[in-house]
Amino acid sequence: MYDLNKIRADFPILAREVNGKPLTYLDNGASAQKPQVVIDAITQAYSMEYANVHRGLHYLSNLATDKYEGVRGTIARFLGAASEDEIVLNTGTTEGINMVAYGWAMPRMEPGDEIVLSVMEHHANIVPWHFLRERQGVVLKWVEVDAQGHLDPQAVIDAIGPKTKLVAITHCSNVLGTVVDVKSVCAGAHEEGVPVLVDGSQGAVHLPVNVADMGCDFYAITGHKLYGPTGSGAIYVQKDRMAEMRPFIGGGDMIKEVSRDAVTYNDPPMKFEAGTPAIVQIIGLGVALDYMMDLGMDNIAAHEAGLRDYAMTRFNGLNWLNIQGQTSDKAAIFSMTLDGAAHAHDISTILDKKGVAVRAGHHCAGPLMDHLGLTATCRASFGLYNTREEVDRLIEALELAHELFA
Amino acid sequence: MYDLNKIRADFPILAREVNGKPLTYLDNGASAQKPQVVIDAITQAYSMEYANVHRGLHYLSNLATDKYEGVRGTIARFLGAASEDEIVLNTGTTEGINMVAYGWAMPRMEPGDEIVLSVMEHHANIVPWHFLRERQGVVLKWVEVDAQGHLDPQAVIDAIGPKTKLVAITHCSNVLGTVVDVKSVCAGAHEEGVPVLVDGSQGAVHLPVNVADMGCDFYAITGHKLYGPTGSGAIYVQKDRMAEMRPFIGGGDMIKEVSRDAVTYNDPPMKFEAGTPAIVQIIGLGVALDYMMDLGMDNIAAHEAGLRDYAMTRFNGLNWLNIQGQTSDKAAIFSMTLDGAAHAHDISTILDKKGVAVRAGHHCAGPLMDHLGLTATCRASFGLYNTREEVDRLIEALELAHELFA
Repeated sequence: MYDLNKIRADFPILAREVNGKPLTYLDNGASAQKPQVVIDAITQAYSMEYANVHRGLHYLSNLATDKYEGVRGTIARFLGAASEDEIVLNTGTTEGINMVAYGWAMPRMEPGDEIVLSVMEHHANIVPWHFLRERQGVVLKWVEVDAQGHLDPQAVIDAIGPKTKLVAITHCSNVLGTVVDVKSVCAGAHEEGVPVLVDGSQGAVHLPVNVADMGCDFYAITGHKLYGPTGSGAIYVQKDRMAEMRPFIGGGDMIKEVSRDAVTYNDPPMKFEAGTPAIVQIIGLGVALDYMMDLGMDNIAAHEAGLRDYAMTRFNGLNWLNIQGQTSDKAAIFSMTLDGAAHAHDISTILDKKGVAVRAGHHCAGPLMDHLGLTATCRASFGLYNTREEVDRLIEALELAHELFA
Repeated sequence: MYDLNKIRADFPILAREVNGKPLTYLDNGASAQKPQVVIDAITQAYSMEYANVHRGLHYLSNLATDKYEGVRGTIARFLGAASEDEIVLNTGTTEGINMVAYGWAMPRMEPGDEIVLSVMEHHANIVPWHFLRERQGVVLKWVEVDAQGHLDPQAVIDAIGPKTKLVAITHCSNVLGTVVDVKSVCAGAHEEGVPVLVDGSQGAVHLPVNVADMGCDFYAITGHKLYGPTGSGAIYVQKDRMAEMRPFIGGGDMIKEVSRDAVTYNDPPMKFEAGTPAIVQIIGLGVALDYMMDLGMDNIAAHEAGLRDYAMTRFNGLNWLNIQGQTSDKAAIFSMTLDGAAHAHDISTILDKKGVAVRAGHHCAGPLMDHLGLTATCRASFGLYNTREEVDRLIEALELAHELFA
């Protein structure tokens, strides 16, 4: 039983007002709100159980280490990884993908080598590859989506050529909501001997994930979108890829020995975790993932699918509203434009006056915006705590914006 | 007036017991405890004021952006930077130094080029340079300290040769407590046209810092040692160096435009801040620095100097105790060994039974441990809230360890 009232009561911020209206928080694609259990875990960690982790030997350090290291197993379970040794803890998807770019891709790519991407990628899964283009002459190959925003996995596989060294693709578009059949992409790419990196920033929030079943080589997640703290995240790295990867960030903890003339590195995954980590943020992330798993990822996905269907039905009644991304199994993420001159920024400002928080802009997806022929959209993105009433409030606010700009 | 009782009451964890004894927290060199104002700021941010920053346009996003961006000015003030545009926000010193290694040093260093380091450096200020040695044939030149642990700034300057491209040096040793005359180092290095990176991980905690007066090119700090959240930090980058630096982490926010074929980067400092930042951690860091500045960095330094002198006087009465680092103006950081067979780990375990938290090990300073001829020390490191009574408790616990292992 998915008790929405009880769930909403778990998130203190949802009780607040904004501009004299109840907060209708539909900016989950940018970042999700935090349940009280996560906030309490942070307070407890800093108030009663805080010390630096690893090699501390004293009581508080051992306690913090146990809590921190315990999250590695939680993340492995959340992602369906075979072993917690395949989980690198970090600060989010951006760091995770950069680690793969610097640590795995850079040392093995020659000028003319190719990386296959979809046009739906977020800048976090584009800019690190542009670095390789700028610095090493790597070629980026882009795969189109159709008019509905659907990405044919076969088109991705067909884009793979003899010089392709990596496929880097989103699990779920942060603009269109499109869910990519990454399992088929992985199967096809692996037949060509090409590893696949999956950007799970949105996918892991809205869908049950099992990396073993998916067959990907890398799966990056970011804690603040998963109802956890800012500055937390992780990346699943399949163990063969882990063994191929050179260290990215250098510092304490990722070494075995350092002398004047030499350095020997720690075993993976520690080899990829340098310096004092985001201790308390990772502890909070563990609590957030437990919270999601307690609700059940299938239940969350089913709830959000219900919201999506309800919203699409209501949107379809508005002939001045254009929704980008029309695949039937998409996540409840709606990028919209209004007929007429209204700019996305103006619309979002009007929505804000009604307490409805959405995001306006390019959503860090430049190539997709070019593909759509737009400079900005207004994006409403739903999370596990959103309601049909909030869909209604969004529509009401959109109608007001339409009236004002018509 | 430095009201120690009032200050201690600001830190909730200091009221707790460990192993049935009052907590005597002397592991500040590894990480500092957090005042209630920092914990409250985090709770407030997540409970009432949370959204992603930048380009949000809605109320909560604007609120979070204002609070987050406000910290840039706080850090500039804390470090004495001329402009907040010289402050890059990040997750700590390790990320800061890696940014300089990847973004500034790698593109401009040829095989045989040199980096001058002291033997006292922390692995965070060694391993990134070993990357350049391993990958690009850069040579690391090491400057010795004397028997007291003093580093002669002229020895650093004398180590600079025609192929030296950077001096990377700590402001304050995390093992010996030695304070380096970095101002003289900077002056001498600049005469040779060589920039200086200062690792401020410990220095900024214990000493008033003014980067403009110091004349350094880079000054890295880490929030969790500054009584702020884990996963927070910053680096000062002098504006000419900032202009020379290429981007390090790629992703959202650090770009102006991204297309399939090209990327244009944001202006500094944003060019060096990719993806959703550690929003709430940076907000917490701002509160922590305000807390320190309200106490007064001179007052904190004077208080800790008093603790150092008291501790040294008491240590000098124990002829079975060896303190590494004997400079008179050192920070209140004491690495010790006991005559006899007692290993640092055993000593710290005994101290822990008495509620005294210290760190045992190599303290992420391999070359210094080699220089000292030790594999491990037991380190007691003091912070702004420590007391003379805690020095007494440390001594009492050390006497017990001495008895047990004598």
